[in-house]
Amino acid sequence: MSQLLRVQNFTVSSDGIGAGEEQTLERPFGHVDPGGLFTWAGATASWPNRTDPGGSRGLDDYFTRDFAHNIGAEIMGRNKFGPQRGPWRDHEWRGWWGDEPPFHTPVFVMTHHERPSFTLSDTTFHFVGGDPATVLDQAREAAQGKDVRLGGGVTTIREFLDADLVDTMHVAVAPVRFGSGLRLWDSPDDLHDRFHHEAVPSPSGVTHHLFWRK
Amino acid sequence: MSQLLRVQNFTVSSDGIGAGEEQTLERPFGHVDPGGLFTWAGATASWPNRTDPGGSRGLDDYFTRDFAHNIGAEIMGRNKFGPQRGPWRDHEWRGWWGDEPPFHTPVFVMTHHERPSFTLSDTTFHFVGGDPATVLDQAREAAQGKDVRLGGGVTTIREFLDADLVDTMHVAVAPVRFGSGLRLWDSPDDLHDRFHHEAVPSPSGVTHHLFWRK
Repeated sequence: MSQLLRVQNFTVSSDGIGAGEEQTLERPFGHVDPGGLFTWAGATASWPNRTDPGGSRGLDDYFTRDFAHNIGAEIMGRNKFGPQRGPWRDHEWRGWWGDEPPFHTPVFVMTHHERPSFTLSDTTFHFVGGDPATVLDQAREAAQGKDVRLGGGVTTIREFLDADLVDTMHVAVAPVRFGSGLRLWDSPDDLHDRFHHEAVPSPSGVTHHLFWRK
Repeated sequence: MSQLLRVQNFTVSSDGIGAGEEQTLERPFGHVDPGGLFTWAGATASWPNRTDPGGSRGLDDYFTRDFAHNIGAEIMGRNKFGPQRGPWRDHEWRGWWGDEPPFHTPVFVMTHHERPSFTLSDTTFHFVGGDPATVLDQAREAAQGKDVRLGGGVTTIREFLDADLVDTMHVAVAPVRFGSGLRLWDSPDDLHDRFHHEAVPSPSGVTHHLFWRK
């Protein structure tokens, strides 16, 4: 298989929750505080938003620096782009990702509502309808031979898992517990029927779960 | 620090031995059988010499695919190039690495004996004298802003550690025992005075030791 669909560095709580409910413009993660989810990545030397030198170059750093490795496009759900629901009311607001989005590739935002593509720095956002297989075809073509990253959130990952389109998946489980929210799984063992699975505890407190197709 | 000197995927036995003695043209690893050292890497999907599809995409694969990531040059000891000692008797034999060496960058072979540079595929071998700091300066310039990999063997790595020039080091400890040979360390704990250290056991049976400067 030459072009993989890869989930990379997706982080959930110990109870499997990737984001809260009641997402708003001010709270992309809804009712949960996402800080505890990403502490492990923010502490690494390769974290793209790092402002001071230093940072860990241990195990967690391998994952942060692999994020963009051989990735030619990203697919994300609409909620990872913004909190709007239904038809776009305006095109002024251009997503949560600022003027320098961390993707550096074409990004395919899944939505039933049309919107023109636009470019911020070296990231171009396309808004696409259709089922996961159709969107993946578009992303693969844009990736020009490289892999495609499936960026999330939870609902989008589950949709691609249900369609059996995910080739590899890295999920970091952080040592926080949310109780309620959008749940990726009851347990990583849910995927054992279709995937090899390694669970690798990191000294930082997260456990890295690695899956690849059987 | 913009250009790191990195040891990557260097593998030793559980008793710290990277190669045997009595190196010959037929036996690059001398009296030890290197097979057991590299089983972990050969089983991964990203192993460059893989001939069949498949292979693990678990933890070990992160290390094999990081091997060339942001590397712009390699430094190696003369014994990693060939078994000759003293002045070169001829320039016909061009190293153990075949017509398609796995480096894909300039390689600086440390030797007291001059020899003209030559290119095989996209790897150019230079033969350089001088102390580790001088060789590192040459390799950094050739790397054009990227990192430099310190390729080994044991003697070369120890020389650069003694000169305090190594920034990060990944050593895989394989579940084999050699008893005698060229020894990297008595214990990874030897480096605790100068390096952070994480030991990460892999399901394959190797333990990945990660070091970065304090």
